[in-house]
Amino acid sequence: MVVPESDEPRETVGDVGEFGLIRRVTAGRRQPATTLLGPGDDAAVVAAPDGRVVTTTDVLVEGVHFRMDWSTPEHVGRKAIAVNVSDIAAMGAVPTGLLVGVACPRTTPAEVIEGMVSGMWQEAARAGAGIVGGDVVAAEQIVISVTALGDLEGRAPITRGGALPGDVVAVCGRLGWSAAGLAVLGRGFRSPVSVVGAYRSPEPPYPAGPQAAQAGATSMIDLSDGLLADLAHVATASSVAIDVQTSQVLVHQRLVEVASALGADARHWVLTGGEDHALAATFSDPAAVPQGWAVIGTVRRGGGVTVDGREYEKPPGWQHWR
Amino acid sequence: MVVPESDEPRETVGDVGEFGLIRRVTAGRRQPATTLLGPGDDAAVVAAPDGRVVTTTDVLVEGVHFRMDWSTPEHVGRKAIAVNVSDIAAMGAVPTGLLVGVACPRTTPAEVIEGMVSGMWQEAARAGAGIVGGDVVAAEQIVISVTALGDLEGRAPITRGGALPGDVVAVCGRLGWSAAGLAVLGRGFRSPVSVVGAYRSPEPPYPAGPQAAQAGATSMIDLSDGLLADLAHVATASSVAIDVQTSQVLVHQRLVEVASALGADARHWVLTGGEDHALAATFSDPAAVPQGWAVIGTVRRGGGVTVDGREYEKPPGWQHWR
Repeated sequence: MVVPESDEPRETVGDVGEFGLIRRVTAGRRQPATTLLGPGDDAAVVAAPDGRVVTTTDVLVEGVHFRMDWSTPEHVGRKAIAVNVSDIAAMGAVPTGLLVGVACPRTTPAEVIEGMVSGMWQEAARAGAGIVGGDVVAAEQIVISVTALGDLEGRAPITRGGALPGDVVAVCGRLGWSAAGLAVLGRGFRSPVSVVGAYRSPEPPYPAGPQAAQAGATSMIDLSDGLLADLAHVATASSVAIDVQTSQVLVHQRLVEVASALGADARHWVLTGGEDHALAATFSDPAAVPQGWAVIGTVRRGGGVTVDGREYEKPPGWQHWR
Repeated sequence: MVVPESDEPRETVGDVGEFGLIRRVTAGRRQPATTLLGPGDDAAVVAAPDGRVVTTTDVLVEGVHFRMDWSTPEHVGRKAIAVNVSDIAAMGAVPTGLLVGVACPRTTPAEVIEGMVSGMWQEAARAGAGIVGGDVVAAEQIVISVTALGDLEGRAPITRGGALPGDVVAVCGRLGWSAAGLAVLGRGFRSPVSVVGAYRSPEPPYPAGPQAAQAGATSMIDLSDGLLADLAHVATASSVAIDVQTSQVLVHQRLVEVASALGADARHWVLTGGEDHALAATFSDPAAVPQGWAVIGTVRRGGGVTVDGREYEKPPGWQHWR
């Protein structure tokens, strides 16, 4: 855990108490205009201008989704927000509000939770959303739950189910960087910072979601489990086949270098690495694919995901418990 | 844990897998009309008819907020929903959607999680809301996070901050029943079922929240920490003093009997017992207090909460970590 060493006993969450901690992490925070009533009451009120709210929740567990010896509390907080806001963006929506639950041992240094919540606010600000509510409770292990709310700005939600044969598949954001960072940390290294930082807290391209929706995306998904695994969700939901053309998939030189140093396969990271939270979308008109998006494949009749027309040889993505 | 004994090895959450479990707990569920897009995509879409959404989140931890040897999985699921929906009702809003996060050990029997989610759906149905999203992850301990969404139906939210000197204080719902149930279970008994059931899953009077708002409530709060502790939040937020008149507070005969059997004080349970999730509200016009609500006190100039004009002699309510 990246916290300064000291002989002085550090104040714990138990010392500060539930209400004291909530006061500390909410004091002086600025809410965006969408926060009509902020934290402090039984519930908050968030604007939903077009009469609908987009919403999603994700839970992150210490030792499963993050390690306190690999990330600072700020990184963990940023990641917890990012993975949720990315799901809002993947519907074509703009994030508005966030709710945060933190369970942690009583012995957790208060500054760890304060650092996490500070990271949450940093990422919320990057997304343009407010943290409008939360809960802090005692548990054996640090567990963070985040719920994100978003505004579709009058548009239809872009689901996983709208891809059509003949569409192109495009991505926006980094692929394989978090997997490379995880591989580096797993071998006991702390650099290069570029890939380690990508693992610690991804930087999803939030505005690319509404941008793709405006451009007429037929389907969209947040790449949390890995490109092939998540495209498989699109293929299933849309009842189509998707083929990824590796000649069109950028494998960044930095990933090639890291993979070479570790004896790993950079292309495998790009195709299957999770947790970068890039976006993938399909478009019927290749000319409509927005700037910043890269076409990497095509949608055909059939089912399943192929790579250069063939089944991919390694297990795509990963699941908890399997 | 109230699960049938058997020699056959039970299927665990790890056996079924994340996606398998999600499929099982979402299959065949009916969504209300407010669910515009249900679970299964990156995010759900919920109606927010008046252009605002009320939202709150709470986290429940095994061993802190519930015990699997004192409650069935269904009870735990119902309680997790109830504590959140009650916060929506306390703003004067009608619940619309719910999001659920479940963290649990891989070795948890799948039927435990299925039972919990079944209880969640039962309580969601009672509240008229849909479960529109969720997440299931591995952890060392069962942790449940719930976020609730609600609709103010065009009304202003009723906060804790609007009580005025001269108002009356009224409550709707049971007081002290959960505390009595907890005391019974803590002594190793399982009955009377009336109080034990109230501890296992409270039945908050959800419609009473919008009802009070329509009747002109000046402030409102969900009684989660105990009557006196929660009225203290209203007193602070409204910068007023609140006096509770014990002659007007109903102590149910059943609580008197249970207290007598345990050598406890039923009145103390009623004044300080948490987790019944009754509602307390203030009204400027005593004649406006709706049916089903009982006047129990008055609002005056000053600060703090008194009982019959005096400071209450026992520590009100409770907090985590303190």
